[in-house]
Amino acid sequence: MSAFLRTRLMGTPAMLAVFSDEAVFGHALAFEAALARAEAAADIMPHTAADAIINCCKTIVFDPAVLAEEMVFAGTLAIPLVQKLRAALPPEAASFVHKGATSQDLADTVLVRQSVAAAKLLAADLNRICTVLRDLAAAHATRPAIGRTLLQDALPISFGLRLAQALAGIEFAAKRLEAEIAAHAKIQFGGAAGTRAGLGGKGSVIALHMAQELGLANSVPWHACRTGIAAIAAALGIVIGALGKLARDISLLAQNSVGELREPAIKGRGGSSAMAHKRNPTGCQVALSACLRAPGLVAGILSGLPAEQERGLGGWQAEGPALADLFLIASASAEALSTVAAGLEIDQAAIARNLENAGIGNDIGESAVIVTAILTHQGE
Amino acid sequence: MSAFLRTRLMGTPAMLAVFSDEAVFGHALAFEAALARAEAAADIMPHTAADAIINCCKTIVFDPAVLAEEMVFAGTLAIPLVQKLRAALPPEAASFVHKGATSQDLADTVLVRQSVAAAKLLAADLNRICTVLRDLAAAHATRPAIGRTLLQDALPISFGLRLAQALAGIEFAAKRLEAEIAAHAKIQFGGAAGTRAGLGGKGSVIALHMAQELGLANSVPWHACRTGIAAIAAALGIVIGALGKLARDISLLAQNSVGELREPAIKGRGGSSAMAHKRNPTGCQVALSACLRAPGLVAGILSGLPAEQERGLGGWQAEGPALADLFLIASASAEALSTVAAGLEIDQAAIARNLENAGIGNDIGESAVIVTAILTHQGE
Amino acid sequence: MSAFLRTRLMGTPAMLAVFSDEAVFGHALAFEAALARAEAAADIMPHTAADAIINCCKTIVFDPAVLAEEMVFAGTLAIPLVQKLRAALPPEAASFVHKGATSQDLADTVLVRQSVAAAKLLAADLNRICTVLRDLAAAHATRPAIGRTLLQDALPISFGLRLAQALAGIEFAAKRLEAEIAAHAKIQFGGAAGTRAGLGGKGSVIALHMAQELGLANSVPWHACRTGIAAIAAALGIVIGALGKLARDISLLAQNSVGELREPAIKGRGGSSAMAHKRNPTGCQVALSACLRAPGLVAGILSGLPAEQERGLGGWQAEGPALADLFLIASASAEALSTVAAGLEIDQAAIARNLENAGIGNDIGESAVIVTAILTHQGE
Amino acid sequence: MSAFLRTRLMGTPAMLAVFSDEAVFGHALAFEAALARAEAAADIMPHTAADAIINCCKTIVFDPAVLAEEMVFAGTLAIPLVQKLRAALPPEAASFVHKGATSQDLADTVLVRQSVAAAKLLAADLNRICTVLRDLAAAHATRPAIGRTLLQDALPISFGLRLAQALAGIEFAAKRLEAEIAAHAKIQFGGAAGTRAGLGGKGSVIALHMAQELGLANSVPWHACRTGIAAIAAALGIVIGALGKLARDISLLAQNSVGELREPAIKGRGGSSAMAHKRNPTGCQVALSACLRAPGLVAGILSGLPAEQERGLGGWQAEGPALADLFLIASASAEALSTVAAGLEIDQAAIARNLENAGIGNDIGESAVIVTAILTHQGE
Repeated sequence: MSAFLRTRLMGTPAMLAVFSDEAVFGHALAFEAALARAEAAADIMPHTAADAIINCCKTIVFDPAVLAEEMVFAGTLAIPLVQKLRAALPPEAASFVHKGATSQDLADTVLVRQSVAAAKLLAADLNRICTVLRDLAAAHATRPAIGRTLLQDALPISFGLRLAQALAGIEFAAKRLEAEIAAHAKIQFGGAAGTRAGLGGKGSVIALHMAQELGLANSVPWHACRTGIAAIAAALGIVIGALGKLARDISLLAQNSVGELREPAIKGRGGSSAMAHKRNPTGCQVALSACLRAPGLVAGILSGLPAEQERGLGGWQAEGPALADLFLIASASAEALSTVAAGLEIDQAAIARNLENAGIGNDIGESAVIVTAILTHQGE
Repeated sequence: MSAFLRTRLMGTPAMLAVFSDEAVFGHALAFEAALARAEAAADIMPHTAADAIINCCKTIVFDPAVLAEEMVFAGTLAIPLVQKLRAALPPEAASFVHKGATSQDLADTVLVRQSVAAAKLLAADLNRICTVLRDLAAAHATRPAIGRTLLQDALPISFGLRLAQALAGIEFAAKRLEAEIAAHAKIQFGGAAGTRAGLGGKGSVIALHMAQELGLANSVPWHACRTGIAAIAAALGIVIGALGKLARDISLLAQNSVGELREPAIKGRGGSSAMAHKRNPTGCQVALSACLRAPGLVAGILSGLPAEQERGLGGWQAEGPALADLFLIASASAEALSTVAAGLEIDQAAIARNLENAGIGNDIGESAVIVTAILTHQGE
Repeated sequence: MSAFLRTRLMGTPAMLAVFSDEAVFGHALAFEAALARAEAAADIMPHTAADAIINCCKTIVFDPAVLAEEMVFAGTLAIPLVQKLRAALPPEAASFVHKGATSQDLADTVLVRQSVAAAKLLAADLNRICTVLRDLAAAHATRPAIGRTLLQDALPISFGLRLAQALAGIEFAAKRLEAEIAAHAKIQFGGAAGTRAGLGGKGSVIALHMAQELGLANSVPWHACRTGIAAIAAALGIVIGALGKLARDISLLAQNSVGELREPAIKGRGGSSAMAHKRNPTGCQVALSACLRAPGLVAGILSGLPAEQERGLGGWQAEGPALADLFLIASASAEALSTVAAGLEIDQAAIARNLENAGIGNDIGESAVIVTAILTHQGE
Repeated sequence: MSAFLRTRLMGTPAMLAVFSDEAVFGHALAFEAALARAEAAADIMPHTAADAIINCCKTIVFDPAVLAEEMVFAGTLAIPLVQKLRAALPPEAASFVHKGATSQDLADTVLVRQSVAAAKLLAADLNRICTVLRDLAAAHATRPAIGRTLLQDALPISFGLRLAQALAGIEFAAKRLEAEIAAHAKIQFGGAAGTRAGLGGKGSVIALHMAQELGLANSVPWHACRTGIAAIAAALGIVIGALGKLARDISLLAQNSVGELREPAIKGRGGSSAMAHKRNPTGCQVALSACLRAPGLVAGILSGLPAEQERGLGGWQAEGPALADLFLIASASAEALSTVAAGLEIDQAAIARNLENAGIGNDIGESAVIVTAILTHQGE
């Protein structure tokens, strides 16, 4: 894994692994193996051919650099990958590889399987953040603090209420992403023009079989109906924005003149190459940077929705990189903020002093009731 | 209503009415009236004051031009509107107007009520399109046509399958929008800093009462938790994109060299100021134009998610115009395509000729099965 | 002018007038008149016909509501507008109206003339801001203040340096917009397919004549070459962002805990409907809100660059509204900030106190030299 | 270089090298060496220390994976990189490394040097495309073809005119990018807060010296004035869009029913994993895919313009990856289209047939004159 990649995309190592070459090859070979198994079960290919293909998918090794060049040249991964599988098999099995499938079947299925894995990873980090925020919101549910609107002191709130509001956004966004993945991580199997031709009418049975083996929802072909991918992308955009809300507030509260919060002190982190005394909000920086990038990535995927006929030219091909980027920056944001949240330093004296300075009393109204409503999901 | 507005935004008259001055004033006054009623019921204000306020909300008339200037000057509509209400009331009622509420409570409640009305309008047009597409997809479920991928002839499909795929996207998008509105059209009532202070602990009761009267879901304050608005915006972006998919295909099939479809001939529409013989795909133009604009509007709303503390500076204020624009261009797209769909001219001879020219037979595989699955929602 | 429009788009009245119905009709009629004059000069039409057309263009009155509906129906303004001109003329002149021109010639020429007027308006406001910033930067060129990086206290700077940096961005952006307008405010005259057919080979002479009369640069037809419009849009996006930089800094410095700056106190402005004590950064709010909206508008125009053949379907039609929105929100931002800048309240004691609190001395390095370099444009 | 990277970003190998780890390290070490040399010349450090640093910069080797992790952890590359340089030097030189500089000085200088190299690479590919288009436009300047507006047959044009219009956009965009790079590839050297403190008043001399050595324009510090980066990004967005215009037209003309053009036949390219008979417009696909991604990337950079005070939190950090992505996808688009353009197959019979079918004669108006004006740059 190159440094460039790691730092450019700011993905976590685990998330980068989800979108690595190895993962792509693994999902692609799982697709071809599942296809062979399903087609043998449906008497579309001999079991001996399927067994040979399945075995080959387990053992074949690709040189990523070579395959990458061939893929760029061919315009799609499936072409060189299928060629290499065929070349590694005896003729009687080779001809059955990829039977009835098209490049997009493979590419979309790889993408949704990556999305399932990526969403699972992300959910764990989001959950960690939410757990901390729940505890902090409860602990500070009645601690008076100055509320600020339009960046000006407004009226008192409870310190826990602000955290609860950030929590509400992240919990909503996390649930939403989970629901979109459940709904749209669907098998793609339609063949060249999305009709499942050449399979003796057994296409839908094969698709169902493949979906089950690959852990995906069953589906009719969705080659040119990209609304599901767009829904996943939008959900990621909202996750990143909801994390950004937390980062925005932490970074504003950590200003020296405010001082209500600080990111945890971590040796080697948040320092400055020029100023040893600084404690930079490095975690917030990652999360806010993601917020600058995500909306444009979502917009790019939305722009591709009006796909041409049975397979779009340009729009479809732009989805994969954008979706990967969204998962990667979301992972970086969630990881950074889970560290920040876990070690958040809260300065109660500063909170009290800022409230005192505002000079408008300490009536926090129904802050505690609202915090409880949010924590118990009665507030929606 | 100015010509400029009508044409610039390409909203339907009905949708423009939803976002008109009159509608804004109506929703704003409904908010103030509902607040008075709920606060009287909660013994926060005398019933006589509430009655006076409610009555005033029914009868007061604003000069839009004056109010607009005052609103721009004050930075928010609530300030001049509340001033005018107070000025029109006797002192004993005037002091109770807007009690415990803040500008954003009014603005957000107006926006979600507009969204409910707008979504209902849009649903009707989307439904019209879907009804036509369902009929057409069924009627042409087995008609062989050439399928095209990457803008090249690929393999045969059924003509109905292509329409069914467009239908699937629009139906999904329509359902999704409906669900987001149901989930996020929530009362906003939090007061100055979102704590419902100054209401003797009765804030949540008042909110519930207001929600019921205004036909909205109940909610804790969501001043700085904008994920719901973002979800509605994303749903609109997907609706517009799904409509664009239909428009893209119609416009490609209507090319003179292809000729499989044409927009209906409507006197005065689709002509050219220079070429009388042309029949331009004017409806598709509206829908595709919307697709160019929508992704950036959604991106703008996503960009505002990291709102500052208890009320954001800039991001929140950008939501309203962007959401209105999304509804307006969605309405124009849906209206245009419902006319197009209803009168779509299908040239069966051209369909047959193009398939013949492709020279790859007419095996449409399981097209009909897939069409049925989509029409019966078994395909998801 | 409706209140809705005024507030939704937050354009200044002067800028809204540039994009009003009346302005559109005025530019459109100027186009038709200039065309007639140029074609008469080139012996393409009789001088009597041209005179009649020119006279009619001066006197004809449209009902905006009617024309708007007809324009939406026809898909373009030119069709009903030309019809009405013809109907108002004797047959021997009527047939010469719009001769050799196409709808897009009229629409693009209207748009660039509006852009010229809009850019001029905007330049005046930008210039006002720059003048104030220059004076302030010079006056505070050596006043020590704490510099802040990543929202944390860093090292001392001069207070004037921060203002000079904001100035540098705005001056650059203003110059850039001016240059783009000079380069791309070009006559559009190509006829139906951009070939200037039917004009006896005199098309380029006619175009030159029209350009001169309409105060635009001469040009070959650019129906499907939209890079100039994209360049203007990008320049506006940068203007809005550069203004946002100033607004961001003012709003951060105006936080109660920082207190180095405040927006001017203006009766009726920046108040709160719930908190009479607040002074909200209302001008910054307008500017920052524009920054959330502009990038998506620019993106929409960039998305339309790959226009189809001789006139795009959808992309071209999306440009006009997006460019108008960009000018409108830029005008609101510039107007708001010119008021803010002119009355900016600088609290020297707070500046000194915050620096003192940072505890890292008051060495402002070469701040003053850098300020001078920026003010004298030696710094680029 | 990983397959993932190669294929995800679709950058050319040469462009990927510009943004590789090795290139980053090289530019970063060049920065530190230039700084040492300039500071020795200005008597800020001993020549012996400078020599040791310069030598160390030539010989030190980093483990990219280690440095990447440390960089992510520290939040910036400069911190671990400077640490490693210091550790590799004797104490009397170590303390002088990076003197007076800050992380952003290094990061921005690296980014602009990469931009210079990247723009040069891109210019070569753009130039290749323009050369071919010029020749083709000239060769077909008078060949009648049917012009198409709104995807409908309109009036005749010359085939060369369409190519000339695409050329005009690409040439304009290429020149614009070149000008932006010349104007904005500027040394960044301001120190911790952009004041050049701690350098005995010699900061501007050092900056000038460094600029000369590093082949960049001289400049005052521009830490929080990001308009130059935004201008480069916008120029790249326009380049990508102008290339997309060419790709759009080629892909539309290559439709089987139109057949006026085809991408060159290249063994192994543009095939289908399911349909051996297809010739997919794979080059156009790359270019159009870039057009879907670029607007959002530009928007992200514009969104970061309102940077906080002396160094933004989030916005600045988002620029680097977005600018790299823009250069990478631009390179892929330009490379793909230079291959396409060089081998473009033009079917004169199809052109004639489509014109004949339109049945509106063959008057191409002033097409040839316009082509000449574009080719001789008289048309602007």
